[in-house]
Amino acid sequence: MKIIVDRKNRKYVVHDKEFHTEKGVIPEEDIINATVGDVLETHMGKKFTVIEPNINDYIELMKRKCSILLPQDLGLITAFTGIGYGSNIVESGTGAGSSLLFFANIVGPEGHVSSYEIREDFVEIIKENIDGTDFNNITLYNQDVTEGFKEEDNSIDMVFVDLPKPSEVIMDAYRILKTGGFIAVYTPYVEQFQIVNIVLGKAGFKHITIREGNVREIEIKNNKTRPNSRMAGHTGYITFARKI
Amino acid sequence: MKIIVDRKNRKYVVHDKEFHTEKGVIPEEDIINATVGDVLETHMGKKFTVIEPNINDYIELMKRKCSILLPQDLGLITAFTGIGYGSNIVESGTGAGSSLLFFANIVGPEGHVSSYEIREDFVEIIKENIDGTDFNNITLYNQDVTEGFKEEDNSIDMVFVDLPKPSEVIMDAYRILKTGGFIAVYTPYVEQFQIVNIVLGKAGFKHITIREGNVREIEIKNNKTRPNSRMAGHTGYITFARKI
Amino acid sequence: MKIIVDRKNRKYVVHDKEFHTEKGVIPEEDIINATVGDVLETHMGKKFTVIEPNINDYIELMKRKCSILLPQDLGLITAFTGIGYGSNIVESGTGAGSSLLFFANIVGPEGHVSSYEIREDFVEIIKENIDGTDFNNITLYNQDVTEGFKEEDNSIDMVFVDLPKPSEVIMDAYRILKTGGFIAVYTPYVEQFQIVNIVLGKAGFKHITIREGNVREIEIKNNKTRPNSRMAGHTGYITFARKI
Amino acid sequence: MKIIVDRKNRKYVVHDKEFHTEKGVIPEEDIINATVGDVLETHMGKKFTVIEPNINDYIELMKRKCSILLPQDLGLITAFTGIGYGSNIVESGTGAGSSLLFFANIVGPEGHVSSYEIREDFVEIIKENIDGTDFNNITLYNQDVTEGFKEEDNSIDMVFVDLPKPSEVIMDAYRILKTGGFIAVYTPYVEQFQIVNIVLGKAGFKHITIREGNVREIEIKNNKTRPNSRMAGHTGYITFARKI
Repeated sequence: MKIIVDRKNRKYVVHDKEFHTEKGVIPEEDIINATVGDVLETHMGKKFTVIEPNINDYIELMKRKCSILLPQDLGLITAFTGIGYGSNIVESGTGAGSSLLFFANIVGPEGHVSSYEIREDFVEIIKENIDGTDFNNITLYNQDVTEGFKEEDNSIDMVFVDLPKPSEVIMDAYRILKTGGFIAVYTPYVEQFQIVNIVLGKAGFKHITIREGNVREIEIKNNKTRPNSRMAGHTGYITFARKI
Repeated sequence: MKIIVDRKNRKYVVHDKEFHTEKGVIPEEDIINATVGDVLETHMGKKFTVIEPNINDYIELMKRKCSILLPQDLGLITAFTGIGYGSNIVESGTGAGSSLLFFANIVGPEGHVSSYEIREDFVEIIKENIDGTDFNNITLYNQDVTEGFKEEDNSIDMVFVDLPKPSEVIMDAYRILKTGGFIAVYTPYVEQFQIVNIVLGKAGFKHITIREGNVREIEIKNNKTRPNSRMAGHTGYITFARKI
Repeated sequence: MKIIVDRKNRKYVVHDKEFHTEKGVIPEEDIINATVGDVLETHMGKKFTVIEPNINDYIELMKRKCSILLPQDLGLITAFTGIGYGSNIVESGTGAGSSLLFFANIVGPEGHVSSYEIREDFVEIIKENIDGTDFNNITLYNQDVTEGFKEEDNSIDMVFVDLPKPSEVIMDAYRILKTGGFIAVYTPYVEQFQIVNIVLGKAGFKHITIREGNVREIEIKNNKTRPNSRMAGHTGYITFARKI
Repeated sequence: MKIIVDRKNRKYVVHDKEFHTEKGVIPEEDIINATVGDVLETHMGKKFTVIEPNINDYIELMKRKCSILLPQDLGLITAFTGIGYGSNIVESGTGAGSSLLFFANIVGPEGHVSSYEIREDFVEIIKENIDGTDFNNITLYNQDVTEGFKEEDNSIDMVFVDLPKPSEVIMDAYRILKTGGFIAVYTPYVEQFQIVNIVLGKAGFKHITIREGNVREIEIKNNKTRPNSRMAGHTGYITFARKI
């Protein structure tokens, strides 16, 4: 599998077979032999560059049935929980699978991401999306997470929760986390993190901190600089806590 | 090396020898035998918990002579460049070394971080800080980066620049990046990213996007919820661009 | 002239004559006799409430050919320059006239607002808009403001500038301001306020402060509270300075 | 009463008598004869400029026992309720009196501000502060506002509420407001505006909108531009609603 980009920055996934575009065909042989940086050309002259694929390219190109977490929020979770290669992560629910792929890309083959999703239709799509990648550090459970995580006690570095009722999994998250491990709970609404805050405390978590991040793009056009007037006013709150 | 935490959440690094505190001593044997989750006690009864150390714990505890990048900015860089395990990263300058440790923790043993720092006194401190860790995927150059990166053409996934005059390294960053690779340039000032924006374009970079992130903490005290009135109004702008 | 509101919160200006709606007619007599709080009804039964008109109602209902300053920015200017009833204000350019009406409503009959606008088509529309109001404390100049303000030295409390090249009027603004008076310069772009900042200093202004305000709406739906995801990421920068 | 400013921008109120400074005395006669823009000098040569006083100068110089509303919030209230000269305003509680003076300065002699404050010690200080001004459009009630506003039905343009339990006055605020009039409720906490939102609806208010404003200063030093890193992360939420 390779990712190619046209001159208008549209990305396409190509597999090791002939690729048909609106402006002609790229032969199978060209695709198989191509390496990053090569320019491929259809018989009608349309050009594509083979790029080093990035986890965000995969996330952008994958099928999905629901909204995804934005990069800024995935970045906050990564930065404040300090996950890295080799980390063992559990998340619930899987949703569109963007956080699953993002975390799997960070923890690598020495780490692992288990992801729990109750909806079968979501799981089917995510499985398709994973099949198109090289990740073999992912376990996907089509399960009601309130039945409990399958992980052992004190075995996990970070639990990420993105559920309508996050409190239902907090006690069990505490059980599976290592001492020093983090939980991160993503909630769009104030009422949610207010409950999460209480339940985290009761479960024994420390250093409970609720954060809201936002990102503004700055545009420079014709030597004029200003923040972009379009901006996401809110994505969600992320509540962090540590088992300590 | 282990990290222990007291009841007031103060963290200490302990090595495999007797540890002296204001309230007594923890014997060498106890420290050597301790595993994550264990509680250690001084002869005067003060208690410490051994925690699974986190990259942020190391960064918090390391010596430094200059300010560090905040987690939210490291998170933005990670999220929007899509780095992960196995990524090859070059950064310049090293500064306090917080981004160096943060990236090294993500790319893992299959990846690598090369870091360039012109100031010898900074390099000395960073070396000490690295010695206290297990990272063996770091190369530190005490070098004026305007002499050029030592890396080969098309070999790097992400170049991170945090220099007073970032433009001086942009052409060479383009050279060493893979097609599809990203540059991220951190600058506190508007005038800096305005120049960076122009030079990135001239160097051939595409998808130039300037972002400013900020994070607000929400506090809940006595069942009263409000954003914290203390907040960093600005850390820096991060300019992202892709070699494509 | 009265303002009436239907059940869907659509506002209409009615004058002392029959008012035709899609759902019937309100007789002239009913309109003439109506006072604030009365409910008027068409012969087909559609109901309207007569409200105490507000300056924002006028601004919302007035014709315009260009974008208007948002209330949050008018509020910042009012608050940080400390204008009130009786203040003498000069503004340039008039634009859609929203700031003109807003300021005229604050300074009242003991104050005055002079407004300079170079475009004749804008001036025509604004004149129509003013004719529909009771304001008699407004002077509108269809003039290139670089020819100089007509006001006397040391006579004005606040000068508001919303021009593509605000620097052209700063020297003359200093002349007409009282000692202790304020200038407020609205600019969408960074490059503009950078020049304004220098020129204000050269003109003799003190306490130069550049401010950027923004407003986020919080929504509560079905007992769920969250900031609205739609938000203006940027309107403009306002540079304040004082003649002192 | 006049306001004078020294070269370091420190402001002083002077009355029609000799003024003593650390660096000498300004004679009574000089003060009496001085007009705006004049420079006064002590016998030791220290210079002061007489400025056109601004409502913010008064607020800055007044005594107080509690924190004050910031200009940006007073600006939001002014802008979104559309108050102006001649408006009739009721506020509760008075607190430090900054909003009282700010509103009195806007509504002028044709308008009026009634302010209710339960704490006698606050009222004493505010009375002193008002005595130093020319305002004769203010009525101050040292009264528990839950006993009800003294104003007549349908007589008020805007009610401003800044109380720990704002809901207690909302029904009565509805009574005294004109049809088309606004209420603005300032609350630091989420839990407060959640209750306010419900009670406003029950009282019959429409167009309930909760807003949070913030202001960031931009600094330019040595030709380097950046937002100030110090910033108020939160002052309060303002809930607006209209009687319609």
